[in-house]
Amino acid sequence: MEKRIITIGRECGSGGHTIGKLVAERLGIAFYDKEIVEMVAAKTKLAPEFIAAHGEYFQSGSLGHIIGYGGRFAGASLRSQSSLQDQMFIVQSDLIHEIAEKEPCVIVGRCADYILQERRDKLDVFIHSAMPFKIERSVREHGLDPEKAESILKKRDRARRHHYNFYTHSDWGRAEHYSITLDSGLLGVPKCVELICCAAQ
Amino acid sequence: MEKRIITIGRECGSGGHTIGKLVAERLGIAFYDKEIVEMVAAKTKLAPEFIAAHGEYFQSGSLGHIIGYGGRFAGASLRSQSSLQDQMFIVQSDLIHEIAEKEPCVIVGRCADYILQERRDKLDVFIHSAMPFKIERSVREHGLDPEKAESILKKRDRARRHHYNFYTHSDWGRAEHYSITLDSGLLGVPKCVELICCAAQ
Repeated sequence: MEKRIITIGRECGSGGHTIGKLVAERLGIAFYDKEIVEMVAAKTKLAPEFIAAHGEYFQSGSLGHIIGYGGRFAGASLRSQSSLQDQMFIVQSDLIHEIAEKEPCVIVGRCADYILQERRDKLDVFIHSAMPFKIERSVREHGLDPEKAESILKKRDRARRHHYNFYTHSDWGRAEHYSITLDSGLLGVPKCVELICCAAQ
Repeated sequence: MEKRIITIGRECGSGGHTIGKLVAERLGIAFYDKEIVEMVAAKTKLAPEFIAAHGEYFQSGSLGHIIGYGGRFAGASLRSQSSLQDQMFIVQSDLIHEIAEKEPCVIVGRCADYILQERRDKLDVFIHSAMPFKIERSVREHGLDPEKAESILKKRDRARRHHYNFYTHSDWGRAEHYSITLDSGLLGVPKCVELICCAAQ
């Protein structure tokens, strides 16, 4: 395999997680998505719920929210949520470098394309699709309320975009940042898996 | 073949023309790029040079420039370059609809993805790459002066972007507008051809 590391950015509901998992299975390599939450939790002692909520989403929130989780961050003063988020980004970045060094893998989200930008053995993927496909998928697979699905998906993507653009100083979802981008609604999940495996080999 | 029509948007120097031609050859379908210039010229009696310069580039210029070509546009008053450009866009759009109706094909540039947006039998591709690849390719294949290549490529892409964004009210090069986008510098031309053929079938 020419590309050892495959990073996958994705719109909420586009099937990026599923596609990444199937790519990893087909190529026989490791898969990291929510696994990273547990690993960051183990390093920082922060609650996994907090890491999941802030590890790749910009959230409006208060210090009380953080303290509510009983969070403690090694060496961090709990002066503001953003400084905590910055430090979490650093821990997460170090972890992503360690993972990439350790083994061939698929890494979903968390600005991994940017964090590993110096590596030449990397394929950067972005998965997107039209809203009807994302709604149908989110209702079917994740039990979202059909009436609220669109606004939930849009809100999550705004937070993801904000987080990505803030930490990478670039523009989430612009073709120029990725090796390959795919419309999963138009192409279908199996075809996306096939194309990514073909591109990586 | 599931997708009869393949549209290819591309950055200058990224090899989009070559990739499109090879895709058409491999799939045994028609190929339209500069061919469209001649067809628009035949319909409008405008000089091919003018159509090539304005058919997918926003140009700063004067009416004198148009009259200098001895141009005549059916039914058009030569009051301004932009109104002429608008009418040329309409003629070009009608032609692209005719071509798509007539036969399976690859169409390069000219907002074909947007013009044919109602069709379901269409794959929209965007080809891009990093500047060093585009410079090297443009110097080798098109004889551009190595000292001036970067500024020439950037200027052409600005004009293409402006033209596309003006007529489509969207954002040239954003993943969400395309079925698949590919980094030709990272993947190489043969792999791009393979991926597009795979996505179309």
